[in-house]
Amino acid sequence: MRVPLSGLPDRVTIYEVGPRDGLQNEKAVVPVDVKAEFVTRLAAAGLRTIETTSFVHPKWVPQLADAEELLGALSREPGIRYPVLVPNERGLDRALAHGVTEIAIFGSATESFARRNLNRTVDESLAMFAPVVERARAEGIWVRGYVSMACGDPWEGDVPIEQVVSVAARMMALGVSQLSLGDTIGVGTPGQVTALIEGLDAAGVTADRLAVHFHDTYGQALANTLAALRAGVTVVDASTGGIGGCPYAESATGNLATEDLVWMLDGLGVETGVDLDALVATSRWMAERLGRPSPSRVVQALSPEPESE
Amino acid sequence: MRVPLSGLPDRVTIYEVGPRDGLQNEKAVVPVDVKAEFVTRLAAAGLRTIETTSFVHPKWVPQLADAEELLGALSREPGIRYPVLVPNERGLDRALAHGVTEIAIFGSATESFARRNLNRTVDESLAMFAPVVERARAEGIWVRGYVSMACGDPWEGDVPIEQVVSVAARMMALGVSQLSLGDTIGVGTPGQVTALIEGLDAAGVTADRLAVHFHDTYGQALANTLAALRAGVTVVDASTGGIGGCPYAESATGNLATEDLVWMLDGLGVETGVDLDALVATSRWMAERLGRPSPSRVVQALSPEPESE
Repeated sequence: MRVPLSGLPDRVTIYEVGPRDGLQNEKAVVPVDVKAEFVTRLAAAGLRTIETTSFVHPKWVPQLADAEELLGALSREPGIRYPVLVPNERGLDRALAHGVTEIAIFGSATESFARRNLNRTVDESLAMFAPVVERARAEGIWVRGYVSMACGDPWEGDVPIEQVVSVAARMMALGVSQLSLGDTIGVGTPGQVTALIEGLDAAGVTADRLAVHFHDTYGQALANTLAALRAGVTVVDASTGGIGGCPYAESATGNLATEDLVWMLDGLGVETGVDLDALVATSRWMAERLGRPSPSRVVQALSPEPESE
Repeated sequence: MRVPLSGLPDRVTIYEVGPRDGLQNEKAVVPVDVKAEFVTRLAAAGLRTIETTSFVHPKWVPQLADAEELLGALSREPGIRYPVLVPNERGLDRALAHGVTEIAIFGSATESFARRNLNRTVDESLAMFAPVVERARAEGIWVRGYVSMACGDPWEGDVPIEQVVSVAARMMALGVSQLSLGDTIGVGTPGQVTALIEGLDAAGVTADRLAVHFHDTYGQALANTLAALRAGVTVVDASTGGIGGCPYAESATGNLATEDLVWMLDGLGVETGVDLDALVATSRWMAERLGRPSPSRVVQALSPEPESE
């Protein structure tokens, strides 16, 4: 049943992260033809922005070592954006050589995660990103910046909102077009999300420049999304089938499942352009290839039940 | 991190349904001493209202056939309410004989479910409840009324809000103290929940008389809870560990998990009086007895991971 709620946008853009953030965090390495079919199915289901792969060195992310091959195999359709994660200038070179027109850079709100993930301080990572963004923009490339650990950090615990705002504003000042606030460990709650978006607004980063990226690890992703939409955000990251949970726990929960998001937005009468049935079918198909069930509640609810023991 | 959100209550009462609604929908029949320990642990974790069992005929709910035995075994503590589901006058007699001081009756917003669950029309079921409520109130018993299928029905599909409001108002008029709106199949979304609460208010049933009972089947339970709290509701039903999913699917999701609710409310600085760690420990203990993992995201996130294959 479609019943609108006051204070929400009419339309939300879903930024699909399954092929990159999802597959990067799966134990199974998926063949390149399956990846290409996955992206093609997502586009056919109505997703208009699909983060496709990453040019991070294969030593760090072997799951996406076939980035070049995938971009070659994929028939990119007009009207659809296929952003690619780029860690540094070398990555940018590779992306440009393959006709990429949208990139994403991946920063951290905390020193602990910057050191562990980027092997740099926050300052050093921003210095590394500066020429990437500058050159990309000079080439007419659209740039997204991720601010990870925006609601908490596994080593530091709580992350002060002012700290996230500060890093986010500095990344925006590099020339980033869109900033994605990532609750990488899924601990945030709706008041914190609202305060973060308000804090960014006060620092000059308005909600129309933001996206939110929630993980459902503690079940909070959709409630946080609702709070973000109320605070003016209209771009929401999600992963079809919720793929990209912890690679070591069967069906552990990481990214918000696109299907669970679409169910809520459909019910609220918020336009997304996405065909939920096609998406669920894609998740079931992908779950077979990953050899594990989808952690998406909607996919589970709409799939035939396993036989009773 | 605790960050309040404007428009929410300072305090929420969690109405725990695990021992009744949860266990009634589990395949495994749990021994009475385990049930008694479960209820005792829930009270020790800070839950103050615990729906304990049901006097529905054992032919229909064999899982709770030991209702009398459980009430005898349980040492009921002062300050804690132990409501019991009562289907009819015979059930009320049994409840009164065992010193029960709070009861719940279980109605339906739809004809289809009334026929299938109660073998009666909606009118006939309300007529059956009338003397139960009247006699209970004469005995000083507190009465809760459930309105199930309040957001959708598996046979009828969408359930018009006016229809739910009408049944709910009629149940309230019987003399019920608190009305629990049940999204029994979990399909509702936040706009629908808000409209339903507003519709009830317009019909004279104010939010202070309401509770909400969400199922997480489609992942919507917490977002719907947030909407209900914004609309003035301060009583939320939940099942510790999320027990009570579909009895035939392993770890399928039914009731909102109390832990996932407490995580959100703790983060929002909304008081519940519940100790999350004690609750998670109780769910792990119960999961062992049920022989299946808890579907609660929080319980999964806070539990040690299984060994990598």
